[in-house]
Amino acid sequence: MKVTVHGRTQHYRTVTFDPARNAVRLIEQRLLPHEFKIISTRDFRETATAITDMIVRGAGAIGATAAYGLAQGARSFRGRDLAKFRKHIEAVYQTLKDARPTAVDPVNAMNDVRAAMRVGKTVEEQQALALAAAEEFANEDARHCEEIGQHGAKLIRNGMKILTHCNAGWLAFVDIGTATAPMYAAQAQGKKFHVFCDETRPRSQGATLTAWELAQQGISHQIIADNAAGHLMQRGEIDLVIVGSDRTLGRTGEVTNKIGTYTKAVLAARHKIPFYVAIPLSTIDWNLKRGLDIPIEDRHESEVLGAWGVVDNSKLKIKNSKPGERVYVRVANPTSGARNPGFDVTPPELITGIITPVGIFKPKQLWANRSKLQG
Amino acid sequence: MKVTVHGRTQHYRTVTFDPARNAVRLIEQRLLPHEFKIISTRDFRETATAITDMIVRGAGAIGATAAYGLAQGARSFRGRDLAKFRKHIEAVYQTLKDARPTAVDPVNAMNDVRAAMRVGKTVEEQQALALAAAEEFANEDARHCEEIGQHGAKLIRNGMKILTHCNAGWLAFVDIGTATAPMYAAQAQGKKFHVFCDETRPRSQGATLTAWELAQQGISHQIIADNAAGHLMQRGEIDLVIVGSDRTLGRTGEVTNKIGTYTKAVLAARHKIPFYVAIPLSTIDWNLKRGLDIPIEDRHESEVLGAWGVVDNSKLKIKNSKPGERVYVRVANPTSGARNPGFDVTPPELITGIITPVGIFKPKQLWANRSKLQG
Repeated sequence: MKVTVHGRTQHYRTVTFDPARNAVRLIEQRLLPHEFKIISTRDFRETATAITDMIVRGAGAIGATAAYGLAQGARSFRGRDLAKFRKHIEAVYQTLKDARPTAVDPVNAMNDVRAAMRVGKTVEEQQALALAAAEEFANEDARHCEEIGQHGAKLIRNGMKILTHCNAGWLAFVDIGTATAPMYAAQAQGKKFHVFCDETRPRSQGATLTAWELAQQGISHQIIADNAAGHLMQRGEIDLVIVGSDRTLGRTGEVTNKIGTYTKAVLAARHKIPFYVAIPLSTIDWNLKRGLDIPIEDRHESEVLGAWGVVDNSKLKIKNSKPGERVYVRVANPTSGARNPGFDVTPPELITGIITPVGIFKPKQLWANRSKLQG
Repeated sequence: MKVTVHGRTQHYRTVTFDPARNAVRLIEQRLLPHEFKIISTRDFRETATAITDMIVRGAGAIGATAAYGLAQGARSFRGRDLAKFRKHIEAVYQTLKDARPTAVDPVNAMNDVRAAMRVGKTVEEQQALALAAAEEFANEDARHCEEIGQHGAKLIRNGMKILTHCNAGWLAFVDIGTATAPMYAAQAQGKKFHVFCDETRPRSQGATLTAWELAQQGISHQIIADNAAGHLMQRGEIDLVIVGSDRTLGRTGEVTNKIGTYTKAVLAARHKIPFYVAIPLSTIDWNLKRGLDIPIEDRHESEVLGAWGVVDNSKLKIKNSKPGERVYVRVANPTSGARNPGFDVTPPELITGIITPVGIFKPKQLWANRSKLQG
């Protein structure tokens, strides 16, 4: 998507490859929304570290980063010995896999690349095939998001007010995003609408990443506290909800997403507001039989007990010595602890439709359409 | 309630009067939860400033502060001329009324004091009556909260997990509080239970004030993000919800309270979890005919766009120069704005009961019981 830095507007993906320097180029997402910077990794180890340190985050984005990292590792090999090359590739694969051990996207992406490489007869051929496969993975991720956008844009009418939660935007993928894709497509079609971004405590991805994305694309939006959506729905100020999903159960239509998604679905159902979930096909889990079996990670309590931000003197009578410094502040009572579940599960009866690259489905219809959805 | 400072435990009210020094003594609430400090105002003008600057906040607490402030002003008058004294009292009244122009509690409290004074035949008598009336106002506030506690404690059983939102605790009153009163009473009865405090963005009164209160009383509790309650209810981890109210409509049973209360009521109804509202009688509005007519204040967007906290280096690799400093940090994207409704309205069908000093009522039964409830 487009980003304007110092008055200059350019198109960016979250991750690209520079063949001349054999480098993976990434948006340094930890600096957003306060600073926009592209970093280059010099070798696959640095690429793995970028995944571990969350310079890049989001399902599609870390998948593509791992795919490029594997190609980067392959291309750094010197020599013609295929057996040695294969051993080297396994080490690269393992390093990138270990970068974020619980994530499934890097593994799936690297498996694609490894399978594509195998038909090459020489090291050189395999190196070329690895890069081509990584590029294809990234392009396919962007294409799928574009298709989600085309299907989802039909739901957006002029003048609508749309609620979204967390960041299922282009920063989480290679480009375009999932929950944001219908918005970007509708904007391209000339539709005018307004987006309410749930702040999305405790990590505030809505206030930081989604709001930054929408601002860069020039889409009318406001951030709201997670507490405010119910009131806005009650007063008729929200017409449509679109969120993303980390894992959707193909058998039941249950949707796992960032904590607070379930609450918004309950509110939307009460107010008869359409509630849509936009997903890439890779996040459908065809095995699990019930949402209750989805493990919900309890994250560190410091996320709830405080916030990260940039010291802002404009609200202060007594000025601080370091305005502009990025700090963690403790907000909560120092002698209290917190409970911090990271995700929740939304049952299918609260979901109007699931927007996928191949069309919009009722959550209970995913299983019947699995041949279409399994690609 | 009790507060432990430097290992010494003592009973405090949010506001008391020191007759020897003719001073109003207040907990400096803006420093909480990071520091506990009592301040003394030297004259009624300083007391008014303390209300304006939110050193003291909360319906009952600012009511009592204004009542004491009026007595303080009366007692500072030198002379025996009743006409001059009356003129002086009007000036004091106006100064304290203007301290928070939209608040109704200071006005009601001062009207009580002024009415009680009138029977005095000399300046000296009226001065004594003013202080006695202010003390009576504060005592009555505490007594009513205690009665709420007695009625509400019956709802709390051993082992329960209770959710509360925002701060309707003793800090908002003279003592004990409303939503917290049943918890403090149940604790005194030896019951064991656990409280989840909604963080309550954007001003975080749950994470700061309610959590501090519960910690001081030694009540088991955890802070949660406002997004988390739905998930906890889904997994059977919440048995009871108790919140406060800023204004309850006597004719309809609709409850106005801090933004996010409505959302919790919708979730509780879905999960068949009892949802109670604890209120002092003074907050019942017997005139308004529908909740939609309650004006919902849109507050400043800076509340949503950032957070106040204390710089905490324990989460940082690169240490900041000023750990412990209280700062405002901008969390959100710098080029985005926010929408910040301060309150919402919960309809009676979502409310199990309204806990008052004179008993627990169904919200729709308030009107039929108005003779009892109008005191």
